[in-house]
Amino acid sequence: MFNGKNISERIIEFIRDYYQNNNLKGVVIGISGGKDSAVVAGLFAKAIGPENIQGIWMPCHSKEQDKENAYKVAEYFGFNIVDVDLTKTYDNYVEQIKRTYPDVQDNNLIDANINIKPRLRMATLYYNAALMSSLKGGTYIVPGTSNACELFVGYFTKGGDSVSDIQVLADLTVEEVIEVGKAIGVPDQVLYKAPDDGLSGLTDEEKLGVKYNDIAKVIEGKDVIDKEKIMRLHKNNLHKFSVPVFRK
Amino acid sequence: MFNGKNISERIIEFIRDYYQNNNLKGVVIGISGGKDSAVVAGLFAKAIGPENIQGIWMPCHSKEQDKENAYKVAEYFGFNIVDVDLTKTYDNYVEQIKRTYPDVQDNNLIDANINIKPRLRMATLYYNAALMSSLKGGTYIVPGTSNACELFVGYFTKGGDSVSDIQVLADLTVEEVIEVGKAIGVPDQVLYKAPDDGLSGLTDEEKLGVKYNDIAKVIEGKDVIDKEKIMRLHKNNLHKFSVPVFRK
Repeated sequence: MFNGKNISERIIEFIRDYYQNNNLKGVVIGISGGKDSAVVAGLFAKAIGPENIQGIWMPCHSKEQDKENAYKVAEYFGFNIVDVDLTKTYDNYVEQIKRTYPDVQDNNLIDANINIKPRLRMATLYYNAALMSSLKGGTYIVPGTSNACELFVGYFTKGGDSVSDIQVLADLTVEEVIEVGKAIGVPDQVLYKAPDDGLSGLTDEEKLGVKYNDIAKVIEGKDVIDKEKIMRLHKNNLHKFSVPVFRK
Repeated sequence: MFNGKNISERIIEFIRDYYQNNNLKGVVIGISGGKDSAVVAGLFAKAIGPENIQGIWMPCHSKEQDKENAYKVAEYFGFNIVDVDLTKTYDNYVEQIKRTYPDVQDNNLIDANINIKPRLRMATLYYNAALMSSLKGGTYIVPGTSNACELFVGYFTKGGDSVSDIQVLADLTVEEVIEVGKAIGVPDQVLYKAPDDGLSGLTDEEKLGVKYNDIAKVIEGKDVIDKEKIMRLHKNNLHKFSVPVFRK
């Protein structure tokens, strides 16, 4: 039986050990207003102290409601959070591409545009980690916030939210992440918000076409109606995990 | 004995097989004006045809000489190349960060700034791959251009040039890449240019403090004066290859 309190304590110990063994100082976390980044931030705040957490709210044509939730998380766990608004950088970037391909229609750009945002966010997190390391005289790293369900179906952007230095939720299903969040006191309005990417206007489950609980069951080897669909998503996204290499 | 002609043929076959097995169409390659991207582009042009190669020259406060070399490569192998100038996006981005941290001194930003460029380039390559896939009705992917010497000492940007969908030079030393380049006819002025990142103003070897030939010897198990230094670089950068994951 999964015990949120016990697992949260083990994750906190895992983080502390890693920081001590590698002589690290802090962490830069993108706070989205959703539960995954909130749980990760809470675990790090307890493991290495809120004074060593730099939260970043990175809007990019984002909702004000998400910002409120992001700041609520920072307030609850007592860490600093700053705004890095990527809207202008994003717009400037898309304009530049349009100048390169003047004949391209907007509907050709939709898929391409969606993945730009997590990639700009990744670059921003690492930029801030380098900056904080320089300012504070100790190494800051970037944690991943993906959970086991997202990873199983490849629901992440390669070169975006998939790039990280340490993963603490990667082996937990969505339900287990919520259990850990409860144990460390993540505010309810964040913990129980239906997860969405803040990019497409759809919830994750609408976008994927399957339920996170069903993905969890498939991971645990159980049968569900959508099993075939979930396994297809899984297989179609395996290429995100391993790159073919020519050997001489 | 390494045979450039033989290895180039085997790489071309490796690419063709992968494209056939995965029903892929094209490739988007960042052409830097240096030898690695030129050799990769040449191998792909021979494997899948120059009409399926989209080269991209992505200046970001870059040298005009590098642009000339990039266009020479495209001309020689007969593929299309476009400019996506990232200078304004980069400047806009750095300005935004400065507004976030008004007290930060420019010397705190140097290290952070250097890694932004490869990350913006990665995002741009994947953006263009999505765009071309949509326009051409078949999947375009992004090849890596790192060679074995660079990988051994971790000389790449995590979340930048390290993100790719297929690697064809990852098992070849710098000297071997040059042999392959000779075999497929990469123009001399590109093939024999001292490699630099186009970012720091230094050549790679100046920046690393060791010679690529010495790295190759260490990879092959031979002794060189700088062996200890090379092994230290290797060990200090292993974290770029594997991320610690908490297991429940």
